[in-house]
Amino acid sequence: MWRIFRAVVATETTYVFSPETPREDALAYWFGPSVTSYVAEDEGGIVGMYKIVPNQRDLGSHVANASFMVDPARGGRGVGREMGLHCLREARKMGFLAMQFNFVVSTNEAAVALWKTLGFSIVGTLPKAFRHRDLGHVDAYVMYRFLDDVE
Amino acid sequence: MWRIFRAVVATETTYVFSPETPREDALAYWFGPSVTSYVAEDEGGIVGMYKIVPNQRDLGSHVANASFMVDPARGGRGVGREMGLHCLREARKMGFLAMQFNFVVSTNEAAVALWKTLGFSIVGTLPKAFRHRDLGHVDAYVMYRFLDDVE
Repeated sequence: MWRIFRAVVATETTYVFSPETPREDALAYWFGPSVTSYVAEDEGGIVGMYKIVPNQRDLGSHVANASFMVDPARGGRGVGREMGLHCLREARKMGFLAMQFNFVVSTNEAAVALWKTLGFSIVGTLPKAFRHRDLGHVDAYVMYRFLDDVE
Repeated sequence: MWRIFRAVVATETTYVFSPETPREDALAYWFGPSVTSYVAEDEGGIVGMYKIVPNQRDLGSHVANASFMVDPARGGRGVGREMGLHCLREARKMGFLAMQFNFVVSTNEAAVALWKTLGFSIVGTLPKAFRHRDLGHVDAYVMYRFLDDVE
């Protein structure tokens, strides 16, 4: 997981984490309090991971937040989509009523398209909120979906 | 500050914190890592407080997040507005390029109106994301403003 985390944040194009993020910060992100984490495996080992966490505490705890990372060497083979589907079912089972992504980088077209096909809508646009390695300040999206239709 | 925090969260109408939030959670909220906190005082003592924190780490750290609480017994007298103006100036001085509120309860009309007069726009709507004591699930807004025009 640390290997995949480092490979993903090294791109500086999809997550706010800097390439120099300490290992303990990554571990806290994936295994902190109230975090439930999952990995996707094939014969060769871990190819991706995701986590579910309440997006807010107490009076906002009925909305889940989730984060996904796929090994960049294994991208484009449906791992993200499989994890997304699994995540929606798990979140529903855990009792969440909705799921929110707080910060989808607008130029990460593969992610935006994937979440739309999985039923998410863009409910907010954060102007120039992400400092992209190649493109400078670009927008980030807030994406949201209720879970009542997840089977 | 603990007294004001308890009075504000007791209403269950503006913040996600439950009325049973432990004192240590409130202290972590106001004095945690990377948090800068301020209080508003009159002759009688503290009447309100606010904090500034980076809304995201690293590649999102140019956007500030802020939170405000006013003693409910002292509401409607401009304390929030004074703190808001002070906050914008402080955030600009600290080098932030924009400020984001992640979770303004849509039925908190006084807050929504105040932030609009201080230059914020609603950039996102989180459907039914807040469990309001009297109204059930209501929307929350994401509000945003650049700081380049703050003097």
